[in-house]
Order: sequence, then structure tokens, then C-alpha cells
Amino acid sequence: MSIRVGIYGYGNLGRGIESAIKQNPDMELVCVFTRRDPEKLTIATEGVKVCHVDKVTDYKDRIDVMILCGGSAKDLPTQTPDLAKMFCVVDSFDTHAKIPEHFARVDSAAAQHGNVAIISCGWDPGMFSLNRLYAEVILPEGKNYTFWGKGVSQGHSDAVRRIEGVADARQYTIPKTDALNSVRNAEEPLLTARDMHLRECFVVAKEGADLERIEKEIKEMPDYFADYDTIVHFISSEEMKRDHSGIPHGGFVIRTGATGADSSNNHVIEYSLKLDSNPEFTASVICAFARAAYKLQKKGELGCKTVFDIPPSLLSPKSPEELRKELL
Amino acid sequence: MSIRVGIYGYGNLGRGIESAIKQNPDMELVCVFTRRDPEKLTIATEGVKVCHVDKVTDYKDRIDVMILCGGSAKDLPTQTPDLAKMFCVVDSFDTHAKIPEHFARVDSAAAQHGNVAIISCGWDPGMFSLNRLYAEVILPEGKNYTFWGKGVSQGHSDAVRRIEGVADARQYTIPKTDALNSVRNAEEPLLTARDMHLRECFVVAKEGADLERIEKEIKEMPDYFADYDTIVHFISSEEMKRDHSGIPHGGFVIRTGATGADSSNNHVIEYSLKLDSNPEFTASVICAFARAAYKLQKKGELGCKTVFDIPPSLLSPKSPEELRKELL
Repeated sequence: MSIRVGIYGYGNLGRGIESAIKQNPDMELVCVFTRRDPEKLTIATEGVKVCHVDKVTDYKDRIDVMILCGGSAKDLPTQTPDLAKMFCVVDSFDTHAKIPEHFARVDSAAAQHGNVAIISCGWDPGMFSLNRLYAEVILPEGKNYTFWGKGVSQGHSDAVRRIEGVADARQYTIPKTDALNSVRNAEEPLLTARDMHLRECFVVAKEGADLERIEKEIKEMPDYFADYDTIVHFISSEEMKRDHSGIPHGGFVIRTGATGADSSNNHVIEYSLKLDSNPEFTASVICAFARAAYKLQKKGELGCKTVFDIPPSLLSPKSPEELRKELL
Repeated sequence: MSIRVGIYGYGNLGRGIESAIKQNPDMELVCVFTRRDPEKLTIATEGVKVCHVDKVTDYKDRIDVMILCGGSAKDLPTQTPDLAKMFCVVDSFDTHAKIPEHFARVDSAAAQHGNVAIISCGWDPGMFSLNRLYAEVILPEGKNYTFWGKGVSQGHSDAVRRIEGVADARQYTIPKTDALNSVRNAEEPLLTARDMHLRECFVVAKEGADLERIEKEIKEMPDYFADYDTIVHFISSEEMKRDHSGIPHGGFVIRTGATGADSSNNHVIEYSLKLDSNPEFTASVICAFARAAYKLQKKGELGCKTVFDIPPSLLSPKSPEELRKELL
């Protein structure tokens, strides 16, 4: 019997989940829930229902795991605990400072209703977090570094789009090679934000806009750009569409540390991702953890978990014997 | 209260464990067990006992986790199940084809005596296995590649040393750059053994030995060298000592795969290690899993596990709250 999955919210991430489910033969998409008019939403999978979110209670016993595809700012803080009362849930909550309160709310909802919830799932938080943890426990005397990119930052692109005179914008976060090399050489450098990442913006200006002012406003924007070296290119909307319509991302988690009687032996642990599509990769991670949520509940577990709490074998459709034979 | 650890076997790995325990403040080395005369063995930690293996039963209630540092060929097949009757145990059993039977023997011994055993722990099998698993569950439509090196292969070095006329030898396994690049470019190439790795040998010949014959015997040795491009250098014993006394190793686990409605988006997941000391890094991994074995037993679990079965959070001395705050 396959794992019956629901998708709650049908944006980039929701579409990524829909496509990832097709790569996992033990999973079956039951329904996509939307706040829009379901009649007007066409999804990619034939024969799968689209329902308004109001109807979600009807699916209480027809869905094993609900995957939440809303945003961390406004959707997930209420959606995840609410839905954890009815289903096992997985979300990709990524507002780091608010994880403790989100965890507490989801934990109590899920535990009271016998469900398993996995929050903050994806690649960062998610796979990058796991790699920071594994690397730290192996090399207690060492230092973790996380670099992001090259990839599109949605938040920074949005910030540029809000500037007067900007019609469209795309911001790439790019790790700096010198910093990466220094880290890989186990030099354990002290690095500022500016040392680690470069920000490159492609901007379509509205007709007659003051380009100099736009560039200045970008480069001086506090939090987003002021602490970085920023490059601004003005391009046409045709160029934007042709060259910048993808959503690539990726990055590096590197830990270096020393071992031995006199700490003379250095080690470098590096995990890297190079992703053509950020939302599709995030969705692929989430699907594997949805399987684990389902299995954990079947084993009698309940409450809120993170990637740190999940035995890796539960992520796989294979049996423990197969895993030991094929992958150990 | 700290986790009381015993070391069973005091070679390179045992010394690595001894040194790793010092980096983990929640662990305490209780005793080193040896088959040699304990009077003649001096260890690096003051105040810690050295006992003959015959005395191990005396320590049944004084050691929480016994770390086995013997070899996979002759020691671990009997030692791990025997000691799992008295202690939680961790070993680094790496004879791949025999893992199922080793697992079964250790599982029944550990389960019957209420202990937790973790077998095949280190970096391969171990961290590399974990990365093969994580990558496969995220990208079900894709391909895993494992490259080893640059590093010293003990087995291949030993094989060269057994050739007549060879006084000493060191063999480095080196991943081939073309193959690595093709894999990283998501070309999913079909690679032979020869495509993936180069074998480089440094040989000290005995006086008067026939160098040409030695080189030929190395290059034609079945299983070890015949299927590879092999380079042989003859060097002096002084050069061997000066340039080849370390035990570096490392490697790469790479998975590429595609996602999306038309599988048009490629992703590259890469995990790599660059290690100055193979045994010290292996020991560092084992220590983290020893902590997990201890915690699992306290939670009432028993029987044999592998790295696939261990929730990552149990590897850390930090609380779940700290982990979520600092690393998620």
C-alpha cells in the first residue's frame, strides 16, 4: 500500500512536490489544496483532485502525510500546527530565530493528536543542517562554514524589485573563491559577510528611470546589500527572460578540524550542492522525509521532529537488509 | 556522568580512539585491552589501565561502550559478538560481502544481553554510506559514484610488500580527474575501475633485486593492479621514511540526478573528505557513534545497528534544543 500524500499550497514548491511524488513509487498524490478557486487551478497530474483548503477536514482519513508548501512568514506558523491535528505533516519552515516557538506549537498539536510532524525540512535548513551536525560531532575541535550559491535569492530579488523605477530584478548570491579556498586549506579564517559572498543583481529598469540612483539604493540597502560587495547590471526584459528565468541554487558546508595527540592532523569535510532548481530539490528532500514521518507514526512515535531526529534508513523505500547490502 | 569507554586492541585505530576521547568531554577512557603483555604496553593517557584481554569480563559493569579496534578478517567476526554479550560495542567491520552474517551474529548476541551494537562504522563504510543513502533518497532518478583517495591503501601496500625483492612499499589510490569532472557535470558516465582510479606505488627494493621483474609483477597482479593504470617508483628507504610515513586518505561520494516534469533540471550532491590521518578520522567517527550506542541503550533499544539506523541528534553531546538553535 502506498503512502497517501496531500499538497497544501500550489506554488513552486507545491509543483516540485507533485513532480517528486512521481519519482517515488511508494507514494501517491491524493489531493492538492489551494486557497484559490479550485475550478481555475489545473495541476500536472491527471486524475488528482484539487480542493479548496476549506475542505481539508474531509480528507482526515484519506491522507497519511500532508506536505505544507506555504511561506514561513505568514502561512506555516498557523498552518503547520493546525494541520498537525489531522495529519502527519512536513514543512520547510526557515525563519531561523522562530524555530523554537514553531517547534513548540507544532509539537503539542501533533503529539495531542497522535501525529508526527517534521519541520524545517529542505536543504538549508535540512541537508546543510545535517551536514553541520555530522561534521561537528566527528571533529569536535574545528570550525563550520556555510557558503550559499551560486544561486538566486528570492528575498534579495524581491528587495530590489521594491525600489522605485525597477520593473524586474534577479539577485545571485555567489560564494567568494578566496574565502572558499582558505577554508578548504584548513586555515580556519575569520570571515565577514563581505569576505564570504558577492551579490550580483540583474535589473530591468522602467523607462526613464534614474539608473544611477537605483544602483546606489541597491548597494546601500541595509541588511540586504550594504555589508557586501554588490555588482549591478541593467538588462532588458528580453535578456531577463532569456538568461534568468531559472531558479538555481546550491552551496557548501565545510568543516575543518584537527585530531591526534598534538592536533597535527587536519581534516576537511565538505558537502556541496549544485541545483538547477531550488524548489524542486527542496521538494525532493521533503518527499523523503514525508516517508519517514509516515513510518515513524506507524512505529508509534508522535510529536514534532527535525531532520536531526530521523534515522536515515526511514527515508528510504528499501528494507534495512537491502540498504546494508547495497549502500553500506 | 561521563560515558565510560574501553578500547579493545591498541594499533593505529586504538591510538586514534584514545586521542579522540580526549576531544569529547562527556567520554572517559577506562581501560585499554591488549593481547600483548600489558606490562610492556605504554599508552598515551596517564592514569588509564592497560589490561590483558583475558581480564575483560572483570570490566562488565565498569565500561559502557567497548570500541573494537581489531581487523575485519580475523578479529571482529568473533570479538564483536563475544563482547556484545557484555557491553555496548562499536566496530569498523569493513568486509562488505560478509556484513549480513556479521550483522546477524552481533544482533543476536547484543539483543540477548540487552546491549546495543553498531557495526561497520567509520568513513567507508560509515559516512560515505550515509551520504550514498541520503543522496539516493533525495534523487531517486540518478546515479551514485564513490571515488577514493588520494590516499594510502593498506591492502594494496601489503600486496606489493609480499613480492619477492621488495623491502617496503606504499600504494596511493588516486581518483582520476577526467572521471570526477564527468560525474560532476551530471553526464552519468559508465566508468570502469581503470577510468576511476590510478594506482601509484612507491617501492623500496632489496639490494640487487630485479626492478623490472618487480614492476611487472605489480602491474600484472590480478584484482589489485591488473585492472588499473599503475605507476611504480623505486625510492630509497630514507625517501620512504621522509615522504611517505603519513596515512592520508579521503574521497568523494557524488550523486547526480534529475527532477521536474520533463526531468530537465539536474542536481549534483557531493560529499568529500580530505584526511591527514585515516585511522584518526575513522576513530573520530566511531567515538560519535559510541555516544549514540550508549544513548540508545539508555532509551531501551537493543541489538545490532548500522549508521543508517542512528538518529543524528544522538551523535552529539548537545541537547535537541541546542542542536535546533545552533545547527538547524
